[in-house]
Amino acid sequence: MPEPVPRADAAEARRVAVDLGERSYDVVIGHGLLDRPAAWESPPVGASALIVTNSTVAPLYLNRVLPVLRERHRRVHSVELPDGEQHKDWPTLNRVFDALLQARCDRGTTVYALGGGVVGDMAGFAAACFMRGVPYVQLPTTLLAQVDSSVGGKTAINHPMGKNMIGAFHQPRVVVCDLDTLSTLPDRELRAGLAEVIKYGPIADWAFFEWIEQHADELLAREPGALQHAVTRSCEIKADVVARDEREDDLRAALNFGHTFGHAIEAGLGFGVWLHGEAVAAGMVLAAELSNRLGMIDEQTGARLAALLERCGLPTRPPALAADRFLELMRLDKKARDGDILFTLLNGPGRAVVRSACDDLVREVVERTPQRA
Amino acid sequence: MPEPVPRADAAEARRVAVDLGERSYDVVIGHGLLDRPAAWESPPVGASALIVTNSTVAPLYLNRVLPVLRERHRRVHSVELPDGEQHKDWPTLNRVFDALLQARCDRGTTVYALGGGVVGDMAGFAAACFMRGVPYVQLPTTLLAQVDSSVGGKTAINHPMGKNMIGAFHQPRVVVCDLDTLSTLPDRELRAGLAEVIKYGPIADWAFFEWIEQHADELLAREPGALQHAVTRSCEIKADVVARDEREDDLRAALNFGHTFGHAIEAGLGFGVWLHGEAVAAGMVLAAELSNRLGMIDEQTGARLAALLERCGLPTRPPALAADRFLELMRLDKKARDGDILFTLLNGPGRAVVRSACDDLVREVVERTPQRA
Repeated sequence: MPEPVPRADAAEARRVAVDLGERSYDVVIGHGLLDRPAAWESPPVGASALIVTNSTVAPLYLNRVLPVLRERHRRVHSVELPDGEQHKDWPTLNRVFDALLQARCDRGTTVYALGGGVVGDMAGFAAACFMRGVPYVQLPTTLLAQVDSSVGGKTAINHPMGKNMIGAFHQPRVVVCDLDTLSTLPDRELRAGLAEVIKYGPIADWAFFEWIEQHADELLAREPGALQHAVTRSCEIKADVVARDEREDDLRAALNFGHTFGHAIEAGLGFGVWLHGEAVAAGMVLAAELSNRLGMIDEQTGARLAALLERCGLPTRPPALAADRFLELMRLDKKARDGDILFTLLNGPGRAVVRSACDDLVREVVERTPQRA
Repeated sequence: MPEPVPRADAAEARRVAVDLGERSYDVVIGHGLLDRPAAWESPPVGASALIVTNSTVAPLYLNRVLPVLRERHRRVHSVELPDGEQHKDWPTLNRVFDALLQARCDRGTTVYALGGGVVGDMAGFAAACFMRGVPYVQLPTTLLAQVDSSVGGKTAINHPMGKNMIGAFHQPRVVVCDLDTLSTLPDRELRAGLAEVIKYGPIADWAFFEWIEQHADELLAREPGALQHAVTRSCEIKADVVARDEREDDLRAALNFGHTFGHAIEAGLGFGVWLHGEAVAAGMVLAAELSNRLGMIDEQTGARLAALLERCGLPTRPPALAADRFLELMRLDKKARDGDILFTLLNGPGRAVVRSACDDLVREVVERTPQRA
């Protein structure tokens, strides 16, 4: 039986706890939260704060967040980064360090990440490194950041040779998902975020996958109740996985379904050409095909996944990238060990496993999947 | 009663335990250790390793360490950085990331830091960030690195506006202090290391200070037994402080005696003009004078400290740097909070405290201490 769409209640925020001992925190999900910091409860206090945002998000939300944070911190500074994955690099990160030092920030300063996944990754990594660690808060404004990247404490920048190669585990103090911010999201970004929402079904909760199949139109139409349920369920699954394996020794690799191929697509095309969620969508189709070739899922499971991604306007075919280039890039994947690529695959619908696969089979999967024109 | 100089025993290495729960490790101190990895016990194993060293140390020791590590790891790579504090920056750090990726290193790769404090800081920070954290081993070859920077897991690079501003806490798996490497150390570097050895007396163990007073000539003559005792006692004190306060919430700030003024000297003159130990020596004299003005130590304690530093050929006067420039730079110190500079001062010989001091008093201390010509 499909779960019904819960009613969106503007007054009532949902809370998902990320249980990590003394590093525990809540993900707060609701409407109008950016203006209601009382709903966040107990974010860090301190004399100073730095908001890290980008040139797209700043005109929309910075002036709403500034006065709210000024009630909490005596000095609130901000720094605006250029928008896009191609800027998730050291020179851009260094602008955050420059801003922190120019504003005479100290170990008591809180960093706020106001934006999508790139802003969250960079603000979080800067907070991890500045004076060897200061607190930070995630204020994600994209679907992808709300359902995935803002939760779990992974922060990083890219290296020209690979995605997220330089980073830290650094948990935020609170994650505040204001669903209202999704109303300003370009369609392409909304769809990219849906790729990560869809991901949670095959790896952990097939009933959730079926719920998405039934409510994809409402999600694409940004129906508030559907979005609230999708964000909440995604955060619940992520929080559960992260609580059991914070530093990806084992279980957490499940969240990487589609990402081994996906990161290779991003690095191979140049960061920012495909959005992260788009690369993950095509990557999931390849990973499902590989799972099928290894006899772990039937063809129908992969076909349903591809059909849902397609319905959400996401790419289900890889870009024009040679199989050997895929292999070369994937050998640098963070899961790889001693030259063996490890893939997060499906072992039945709703169950992820980490496995290696021989190069020939991977090459065949890449070559037999028609490339995107 | 002065402690006698223990006999140096080439066969027997000392072990100092750094007790940090699951991050615990040993500091192994002895002669000829670089060639005897059996004496290290349980460093990480894994298919690959990267040795980070510099252009001064590589010709001396790299070819001794390479074959030894090749017995432990199938692939052993190395990267040679330029020598000097002025290179403890991002572009140089990035050469370590380039080397790791070009050599197809992965999460199982061990990074070895072969060199002094700068190499240790950069290799350690690279290990902290590469793929969000890989194991590393410290092989310190300078006195300063053996007695201070290689122990305790502080890693960092400099920012033009301040020393060690960007970094991480990342504990090594083992620290191997081969005292034989001190025989190739330039005199100036030996003296700079003695500044950190001397530091442990006033902050934690006045009897050790008196031992150094009595054995300074042997230390300057590099008498093996004297060096072994100095390194071991320094590491014991540091290990004890770090075990009680790994992340410098409180107690660990004691180790920063002389460093608030010292870091300002390094940043104010430009990194690398004075060696770190030299800046700390002059910084300790200023901090002792400030402690005296605040009524916490008598004049004689400060005078004995200055006399010992002088005997060791270390600067006891600050360079030509205006008092206001000192204040400006120290406001960026990592201990500062909300614009108040916090100093590690002496509250009696052998006892450190963290205190603020009004700008006027600090200015007076800087201005009344004759500057170095």
